[in-house]
Amino acid sequence: MTQNQEIAKGLEGVRFTESKLTFINGQEGILTHLGIPIQEWAEQSTFEELSLALLLRRLPIAQELAEFDAELKANREIPEELTQLIRQMPQDANPMQALRTAVSYLGLLDQQSEDITPEARRAISVRLIAQLATIIAAQMRAANGKDIVAPRQDLSHAGNFLYMINGTEPTPEQARLFDIALILHVDHGMNASTFTAIATSSTLSDMYSAMTSAIGALKGPLHGGANEQVMVMLEEVGSPDKAADYINAKLDNKEKIMGVGHRVYKNFDPRSRVLRDYAAMVADKEGKSTNYQILETIEKTVVDRIGDKGIYPNVDFYSGTVYTDLGIEKEYFTPIFALARISGWCASVMEYSEDNRLLRPSSVYTGDTDAHYLNLEDRS
Amino acid sequence: MTQNQEIAKGLEGVRFTESKLTFINGQEGILTHLGIPIQEWAEQSTFEELSLALLLRRLPIAQELAEFDAELKANREIPEELTQLIRQMPQDANPMQALRTAVSYLGLLDQQSEDITPEARRAISVRLIAQLATIIAAQMRAANGKDIVAPRQDLSHAGNFLYMINGTEPTPEQARLFDIALILHVDHGMNASTFTAIATSSTLSDMYSAMTSAIGALKGPLHGGANEQVMVMLEEVGSPDKAADYINAKLDNKEKIMGVGHRVYKNFDPRSRVLRDYAAMVADKEGKSTNYQILETIEKTVVDRIGDKGIYPNVDFYSGTVYTDLGIEKEYFTPIFALARISGWCASVMEYSEDNRLLRPSSVYTGDTDAHYLNLEDRS
Repeated sequence: MTQNQEIAKGLEGVRFTESKLTFINGQEGILTHLGIPIQEWAEQSTFEELSLALLLRRLPIAQELAEFDAELKANREIPEELTQLIRQMPQDANPMQALRTAVSYLGLLDQQSEDITPEARRAISVRLIAQLATIIAAQMRAANGKDIVAPRQDLSHAGNFLYMINGTEPTPEQARLFDIALILHVDHGMNASTFTAIATSSTLSDMYSAMTSAIGALKGPLHGGANEQVMVMLEEVGSPDKAADYINAKLDNKEKIMGVGHRVYKNFDPRSRVLRDYAAMVADKEGKSTNYQILETIEKTVVDRIGDKGIYPNVDFYSGTVYTDLGIEKEYFTPIFALARISGWCASVMEYSEDNRLLRPSSVYTGDTDAHYLNLEDRS
Repeated sequence: MTQNQEIAKGLEGVRFTESKLTFINGQEGILTHLGIPIQEWAEQSTFEELSLALLLRRLPIAQELAEFDAELKANREIPEELTQLIRQMPQDANPMQALRTAVSYLGLLDQQSEDITPEARRAISVRLIAQLATIIAAQMRAANGKDIVAPRQDLSHAGNFLYMINGTEPTPEQARLFDIALILHVDHGMNASTFTAIATSSTLSDMYSAMTSAIGALKGPLHGGANEQVMVMLEEVGSPDKAADYINAKLDNKEKIMGVGHRVYKNFDPRSRVLRDYAAMVADKEGKSTNYQILETIEKTVVDRIGDKGIYPNVDFYSGTVYTDLGIEKEYFTPIFALARISGWCASVMEYSEDNRLLRPSSVYTGDTDAHYLNLEDRS
């Protein structure tokens, strides 16, 4: 009770732990993992390597990375009981409820799940990272009435996921574009889902409980879901020639434009530029989709009109279009967020558990004092 | 960033919200719900009434209570798909992983689950309170290779639960004893599972996500699980005549005795006395079990030797024995905790959601700055 009656609403500004994973400076548009700028990760690394680096909290050496990669590949299959459950889920199931249920069930089926030693947590993290892709792809296929596609071991994590959802092998450029999108979403400091994972884990609960909590938190519209709104906007616009008028009208009416500006990044979102550049390269090579053309026009209009105020398209602006063009429906954007963020969640929980402290803040009691139970007939 | 670099470890002493539900004064041994002492709730009310009172944040009038009770009874059945899943779970499944998975799946099957209006949250809370009993009983029966017993509508919440787990109707005294045990566990202020439920819900996620998170947090040994350890102790003691020697040896060696003393209640746990008294009455009437006799001897030894230090048996001390004598194995004590606490979780989430604020504390970055990506061959 060190703070008397002061209330830290939303726990904003309250620091409760140390972390060596991610640094963000919104004013200057800086995002680093392990001190390395996100741009370098996106341009030179892979989802697999960044995941391992966060778990280790350092760059892995070649042999470690090769072993981790092999382990991920070997763990792509999910238990048959889980595939069965996914097939039985209602076709209109909310994909995040489906994911939360599948991960919880995976824990039930994992003989090691109750083990919270660092070694077990690491092994479970590898399985979770690998199998989340298989779960999401299977549920997406089943919900669309399609056969579930088994994972392949000869593709990258990103490439295999695209293969499992589309049933056809992606081009190397498509696989790399999705890999970059994943890299950009692996971690973002102490966000609400990471915090919820830590809160759950702080009771010394298991990894699956922590991840189930994180998925539940990510599901909330105040957290995930922004790039889904970008696609709603693109669908509203309809065709590239209508994009400029649409945006100009929004700006004239001072309406919010989805995917533009960012709570944290006041100048530009360091993640958006690298995704834009690679997406542009792929679009040039493989042809520009209608969505991509709308996006280009919106971007130009936004930057021309309000770019000087430091308001630029953010990462959600590009990722929505990229995902759509890769065959992912907008209802699955939040599961895709989880697909990337699972590595950040696992790494954060592992880091916190090394110096664990039960999270238990307080509330201020403002209710009645000195009341008494009344018999039913004496109440009004 | 109001607190510069100070770290509030475990968020201890940090107050983040107001609440009118529960007041605790550990020094004076006070626990109230809506200002009414827990002893009055336990002696005069029911689990159903306390649940509704917390949801309403006032004592209900007779008609409201009758309607709520009817609603609970009408909602006891769980969907056939969920019963099927429970039957398919591995027999050695961790009961809390099973419960977490079942509640998550229940959300998937609930057409209203995405609705977060107060009316929907309330309706979902009623279903969750009702159906948690059915889920836990079904899973307990299935794990023991027994047929699942369908709920009955003519019994109280507590009585119906005992009926579903044992397949026989409890005596009125047994049902009332279990009802009291539930009442004593419905809420306990801002504990870790309630906090995790709020953290998840603060992203505007759904009730099932919040409850799944809470179950995951309650599962951790730093939170639930203390009364399970009491039963481990009773099993170690083995027979009543060995109890005094066992405890004296522990006290001589300054070893911790499970179920004795409490982090919060420095004099006595206000919940323990009422449970002890009612349990004693039932034991006198229905005969004292071996466990009960061991418990009596331990209690006497503890109070004689260290009672003057303000260290008394706490509620876990009695509840473990009570549960065992009612037919509940110790592996199910934490699910039973959830069976009671679900009402507190739902009420707390509903209260917080009326003035919702995304929970997002910060961490202090202590890692590398200004590092760069290295090619694999340049790492050591």
